[in-house]
Amino acid sequence: MARINEHFLKLQAGYLFPEIGRRVQAFAAEHPDKAGQIIRCGIGDVTEPLPSAAIEAMHKAVDDLATHENFHGYGPEQGYAWLRETIAQNAYAAHGIRVSADEIFISDGAKCDMGNILDIFGPDNSIAVPDPVYPVYVDTNVMNGNTGNIQEDGTYEGLVYLPCTPENNFVPDIPKEKVDLIYLCFPNNPTGAVARRNDLIKWVEYALANDAIILYDGAYEAFITDPLIPRSIFDIPGARRCAIEFRSFSKQGGFTGVRCGYVVIPQELTGKDGQGNRVPVSQLWARRHSTKFNGASYIVQRGAAALFTEQGLLETHTLISHYLGNASLLASACRQVGLRVWGGENAPYIWVECPKGTSSWEMFDKMLKEALVVITPGAGFGSMGEGFFRISAFNTRDNVNEVCRRIHKLFA
Amino acid sequence: MARINEHFLKLQAGYLFPEIGRRVQAFAAEHPDKAGQIIRCGIGDVTEPLPSAAIEAMHKAVDDLATHENFHGYGPEQGYAWLRETIAQNAYAAHGIRVSADEIFISDGAKCDMGNILDIFGPDNSIAVPDPVYPVYVDTNVMNGNTGNIQEDGTYEGLVYLPCTPENNFVPDIPKEKVDLIYLCFPNNPTGAVARRNDLIKWVEYALANDAIILYDGAYEAFITDPLIPRSIFDIPGARRCAIEFRSFSKQGGFTGVRCGYVVIPQELTGKDGQGNRVPVSQLWARRHSTKFNGASYIVQRGAAALFTEQGLLETHTLISHYLGNASLLASACRQVGLRVWGGENAPYIWVECPKGTSSWEMFDKMLKEALVVITPGAGFGSMGEGFFRISAFNTRDNVNEVCRRIHKLFA
Repeated sequence: MARINEHFLKLQAGYLFPEIGRRVQAFAAEHPDKAGQIIRCGIGDVTEPLPSAAIEAMHKAVDDLATHENFHGYGPEQGYAWLRETIAQNAYAAHGIRVSADEIFISDGAKCDMGNILDIFGPDNSIAVPDPVYPVYVDTNVMNGNTGNIQEDGTYEGLVYLPCTPENNFVPDIPKEKVDLIYLCFPNNPTGAVARRNDLIKWVEYALANDAIILYDGAYEAFITDPLIPRSIFDIPGARRCAIEFRSFSKQGGFTGVRCGYVVIPQELTGKDGQGNRVPVSQLWARRHSTKFNGASYIVQRGAAALFTEQGLLETHTLISHYLGNASLLASACRQVGLRVWGGENAPYIWVECPKGTSSWEMFDKMLKEALVVITPGAGFGSMGEGFFRISAFNTRDNVNEVCRRIHKLFA
Repeated sequence: MARINEHFLKLQAGYLFPEIGRRVQAFAAEHPDKAGQIIRCGIGDVTEPLPSAAIEAMHKAVDDLATHENFHGYGPEQGYAWLRETIAQNAYAAHGIRVSADEIFISDGAKCDMGNILDIFGPDNSIAVPDPVYPVYVDTNVMNGNTGNIQEDGTYEGLVYLPCTPENNFVPDIPKEKVDLIYLCFPNNPTGAVARRNDLIKWVEYALANDAIILYDGAYEAFITDPLIPRSIFDIPGARRCAIEFRSFSKQGGFTGVRCGYVVIPQELTGKDGQGNRVPVSQLWARRHSTKFNGASYIVQRGAAALFTEQGLLETHTLISHYLGNASLLASACRQVGLRVWGGENAPYIWVECPKGTSSWEMFDKMLKEALVVITPGAGFGSMGEGFFRISAFNTRDNVNEVCRRIHKLFA
């Protein structure tokens, strides 16, 4: 009798974004006349064409596969050295951060990496997640059996939730209890919060003191323009002994449909086995990666590498500026109608407080039905997200201007 | 204190193919004069350029990403409907097999799927694997904690091994004990064996009688030319209630470096929870897929779909015929020097018995050092693989002819 993984049954009915999709589809089906006017600021999906540097590189890569001489079959599971080296140079060394190419593992995206990383950790870790939070962190822990059941407020037994509130600027405080794995994400999804150097120093000190590992989601790193904000956890002394960093080309290069990301695991980073022996974490991930993954697409890796050419860096900068400009417009529009707003600087997300007495799913329905704008209800990111909603700045400028007009109309 | 997944420590030092790579590199470094003459028939990696249908489709897809109008960001996690529909039509309906598009889950490759599938099954299943076997099945079960320690003969405690021998034509016999999950792979990697209808009927009957699930690896299905050999487990009555099928474009379309595969989970297929309630397996996989995966690359999916156009089907046929021609030549060469040979028909692998008294790693070293040919030692596929070696037919015709000459010289 084949037995299923029962932990899956603890999960809530739907992953957040499919649920949003269902509601939007249902509304569009009921109101076909309005369907065409719906503007999606829900899921953080890019809208702008790829940098031409990446387009050219991928055309060339496709052509390579059409010839015997330049054909590429299975690549190294860890990713091609030319991509890992350009990342080490441009994404780290250029910012004064030491990461070597062999500490970088290329993948088909940060979401996969964030989910799969739990494969290499044991079942007996105490795990801390921010609240609100990217749902993948929580759901993958549920699937892995690292939690108990869901409780009335939407939290899972066994996880340590780190409240992110206006009071702490949505940067979680150090917990009183001892935890072993800590998820942090800056610039933050969903709140758009950024962590300052002192914030991260506190966390690194805590992790070192408690022999804990920080799982640092830097998927939105490209949006940091303020030189005082650390771009990487490895900019903090000691982090190489207590952190794994996750990065993505989804936002940096508009690669959400292209699929490429990477994980950085410093050689110094260790976890403990049952006897207390230290085991290098990168060895475990290398084994996982070579056994359950077969390398990212050659075409895609060529495209990612091209983002770091002179032309690619210029174009990426333009792309990021476009979305940051959107973020600024959306934040202003919300502020002008009297809403409280966070994020939207050094980050592509605006985090907005719902008007008093309106729940975040009520807000979602109101925005959808009355303004034809799709946002993401804060409650979808955790119990502390209730009372807030997220607006994504990933859109065309025309759409953003229209959303600003509709916000004015709805709240004026 | 962050604790690692200790099951990883039970794994043998290296995954097979990296180990082969290391030995070849070491030899090449010691003998730089000979390095250029080494011919690789080890890993089953394609060598021929992609079908031009796929090349054209991927160029077009790259161009799509360069425009606002045709831009594609995140796709459906399950894969685009146009790809799933063309698979349902061409890979199944055209062969009289009923599989619907919504039972197909597109991924970045069968290796990932075969590894990740264990996420949705519980820890208390009895698991059967053929021996010899594709190492990924065993290693991923070790990582998942589904086995005990490795034993002296290289097998892991707790797994049920199904011996594949010349006596059973390398198609495993039904086990005497009751098992819950069964890995089967036809055309087989590594032995090149194929299963006839009656073989598969026995397995489906066993699975139905025992409420077991067959994990059917059909990555090499495209090599089946004999109309009497089933192309899919779903060609067998009842299989929809007891099987998951894994397929790949790696060999069919030469996509090893492009990365695309798919899983078929029929809606009827269920597993049981602890209370004995039946849970649809496809629901669990859909949840896993949408939480820990973000869809295969748009470019890649366009390329895969093009393999099923009229031109794509023709070109794929030519590609497969090329490799089957290689297989036939290699099998003949081995037979001519008196070696016992299996496989190589309806399959891209030749399975050869080592000369008496030679172990399979000794054979590997002999072939590498004396013939400058890389093969795969049978022992790398399990204890029953000892005494055999695998030759891959994935090569250019020139290389294959040269390998045949070297085999003649070495054994004559």
